[in-house]
This record gives sequence, C-alpha cells and structure tokens, in this order.
Amino acid sequence: MWQLFQFPLCPFSRKVRLILAEKGVAHELVRENPWDRRDEFMDLNPAGETPVLVETEQGITLIGSQPIAEYFDETVDKMPMIHGNAVMRAEIRRLVEWFDEKLFREVVEPMMVERMRKRLVSHESPDTRILREAMRVANNHLDYVDYLLDHRRWMAGPGLSLADFTAAAHISVIDYLGALDWRGHKPTKDWYAVMKSRPAFRPLLGERMEVIVPPNHYDKVDF
Amino acid sequence: MWQLFQFPLCPFSRKVRLILAEKGVAHELVRENPWDRRDEFMDLNPAGETPVLVETEQGITLIGSQPIAEYFDETVDKMPMIHGNAVMRAEIRRLVEWFDEKLFREVVEPMMVERMRKRLVSHESPDTRILREAMRVANNHLDYVDYLLDHRRWMAGPGLSLADFTAAAHISVIDYLGALDWRGHKPTKDWYAVMKSRPAFRPLLGERMEVIVPPNHYDKVDF
Ligand SMILES: N[C@@H](CCC(=O)N[C@@H](CS)C(=O)NCC(=O)O)C(=O)O
Ligand SMILES: N[C@@H](CCC(=O)N[C@@H](CS)C(=O)NCC(=O)O)C(=O)O
Repeated sequence: MWQLFQFPLCPFSRKVRLILAEKGVAHELVRENPWDRRDEFMDLNPAGETPVLVETEQGITLIGSQPIAEYFDETVDKMPMIHGNAVMRAEIRRLVEWFDEKLFREVVEPMMVERMRKRLVSHESPDTRILREAMRVANNHLDYVDYLLDHRRWMAGPGLSLADFTAAAHISVIDYLGALDWRGHKPTKDWYAVMKSRPAFRPLLGERMEVIVPPNHYDKVDF
Repeated sequence: MWQLFQFPLCPFSRKVRLILAEKGVAHELVRENPWDRRDEFMDLNPAGETPVLVETEQGITLIGSQPIAEYFDETVDKMPMIHGNAVMRAEIRRLVEWFDEKLFREVVEPMMVERMRKRLVSHESPDTRILREAMRVANNHLDYVDYLLDHRRWMAGPGLSLADFTAAAHISVIDYLGALDWRGHKPTKDWYAVMKSRPAFRPLLGERMEVIVPPNHYDKVDF
C-alpha cells in the first residue's frame, strides 16, 4: 500500500490527498513535519519537503506534488485530471503552476510561516505587516480567480481538472489560517462550496492541526 | 510560426529554447524584459513572467516552461524529453522541479537580482552577503548533482532527458554570472561539457546580455 508522508496544513500534501481520493487509490497517511528534518525522511527526499509517496513492496518513491499528480494521471484512468487536447492540458498545467508557485510564494507560505511555524516551532509572534500584505495579495489573486470563473465553468475550462483540486488545496489552507475575506468573491465562493461538498474533500476538512484552530466557517459547505 | 517571448539570461526561456531546438520546432525570438511590465505582455501572461510562446495564426498561447515542455513532448516525437515508464517519468519531473524551484530560488534568482537586475534596472550595487550565500549554496547543490552523476549516466538515469536540459539552462545562467567555482565538481563539469557541445546549445552560448560580460570560459566546451 502507498504511504503518504505529509502534514495537515501542507497545501501540496492536500493536493495529493485529493488526487488519491478522487482516483480511488488506497493509501495510508504518515505524519511528517519537514522542519524536524528527520534523517529517515531526508534519505527519502534530499530536498526535505513533503509530500513524498512510498510503496515499499514495489520499491517506488515519488517526490513532489506535480510528479505525483502526473504519475497517477498516467497510470489510473478514473477521474482524468490533465485532460483534453494539448492546448487545454497546457492551460491546466499553467494554472496548477500559478497556484503552486505564485499563490503559494506570495500568500500561502508567508501565512504558514507567520501563523503556524512561528507558533509551533520558533515560538515567536507573527509579523502583522507580513500578514497584512499577504492578505492584500490574496484578495487580488482571488479577483483573478473570480475573473476566470466568470468566464469558465471550472478553473481551466469546461471540465473539472487538476487546476480545481490544486486551487482548492491552497485556498483551504489559507482559509484554515483565517486569512480569507470571502466578501466580494462570489464566483470563487460558489465554486469552493461545490469543491468542499465532494466526498474526497470531507476528510481534509475534518482534520485539525494541533494548537491552531480554524475559523467557524472553515468546514461548512454553506459559509 | 511560434514566437518566444524571452530574454537572454532567463533560465526558463533557455530551457524552452533548448527544447525547441532539440525537437526541431521553428520559432522566432522576441526580446521581453518582464520588469518593464509591458501592457501587451501582461495581457498575454497575467503573471508577467517569461517565457511565453505564441502562435498567432492558430491562436495558441502557451505559458510557463513546464507546460511548454509537456506540450511539445506530447505533440512532437523527435527527442523524447520525459520518457520511460511512469516511475522514470516521475524521477525526471522531480529533478526538473528541483532545478526550476530549489536551485532557482536559492541560487539563480538571487544571482540574477544582484548581478543583473540591480545593474540594469535599479542601478544599485550588489549585496555581497547575498552573493556569497548564493555561491555557498550553489556549491552544495553541485555536490548533489555530482552525486547523481556518479551513479547515473545522465541526470535522471540511463537516458538523456528534460532533467539534463533544465539543469543545463539554470547552470548556464549561473556560469554566465560568474558564480560557479568548477573546481571539485568533476562529474558535473564533464557532463556540462557534453551538454555545451550539443548544436542546440551553441546559439545560447553565443548570445550576450547587454552590459553584463560572462567569464572567459563561459562559452568554451573545454573549460
Ligand atoms: N514543489 C513541491 C513543494 C513542496 C513544499 O514546498 N513543501 C513544504 C511544506 S508545504 C515543505 O516541506 N517545506 C520545507 C520545510 O517546511 O522545511 C511540491 O509541489 O510538492
Ligand atoms: N515557473 C515559471 C517561472 C518563470 C519566471 O520566473 N520567469 C522570470 C524570469 S527568468 C520572470 O519573468 N520574473 C518576473 C520578473 O522578473 O518580473 C516557468 O517555469 O516558466
């Protein structure tokens, strides 16, 4: 069976969990805090990052959310994630990268550092200036997502795709950290309500990171 | 014909140029400085980043080096870039991501900011502390590349792949900026000499960024 090394507020781990659940791939979760830099984990992934997915019997180690996403899209037919013609597939991958890199670097990562890492690891208080800036950028980025969803049924076009699951993974982490003001983002809010109601999403929304409490609306489909 | 919006010292543009050349895809280069934030360019790519590849007649716009790489690997058979079984393909993509994200964030990007952007755009002098740290990290990362090449014929395994072209793109930018000490990195040096001698690499090595002069050995296959 596959073992997924991950932690509850890692957006890339969430992306992989959504993919495995949607595709019906049996797996077991192993809690890993990358900041512990555990020797056995560093041996699995020299970059020291979650997620890592391991199948001991077959001797397979898969590293990084996008290589893992492509792997299962190539090997499991159920719920195609990167679909359509080559141009559509490029658009899906563009948006996946936009969430995984731009939204992550400018919003999710600073939020995680200020509201989670400082609390759990270094016991400092968050830098409110950084938090305010990340929330301001989050708001701009949601405007772009609103714009996409005003023109398309799903994030990348007419079909549900990896772009939607990637977006939902990152947005759910920001939302958990209480950094999203949903007012004024109706298209994204409606889309997110639909994503949240998928059975694959429910276990994620039920899970809690120690010490850090999400806002009340976090796991509600109506919010 | 394809038009590639790019600039000479952008590693992601170089990655795409190597792919197009190896696959024999005719294209024309359009110089774009992303820091100018030109309106027409921002309309093409709201993220404001190079590379962007456009085919006006067919109305196709491809954004980002990895979506572009996957697109041409799916549509052009010549010189397969992401090949082998699904596990090998995951390993190729893991390494591509390692160069595009880790090496880029920790070495290439700070180098570009200190040695190029400050010179061309903001007219400040480079921060030597940041440069020293980037060079130290570059050296550690080359140790890891040495280790890979001690165990494998090419970066990701027995076959030449996208991992090699991606690595060469990033390394060539650092080398242009004079930030690599090749002593003590024989495996990587030998591999890079082979990459440099490929016809697809020659035009890149012949090109110069205004104002910034590369070290003498930069375009030599024997260095
Ligand atoms: N590109 C990687 C990014 C993985 C990543 O950045 N993971 C974070 C946690 S969400 C990490 O492990 N960072 C190292 C650390 O926190 O020490 C992916 O898509 O999987
Ligand atoms: N993930 C993108 C990264 C592209 C990127 O970061 N490009 C840089 C130049 S090398 C850029 O345009 N940065 C914005 C700027 O310099 O303003 C890719 O693989 O194409």
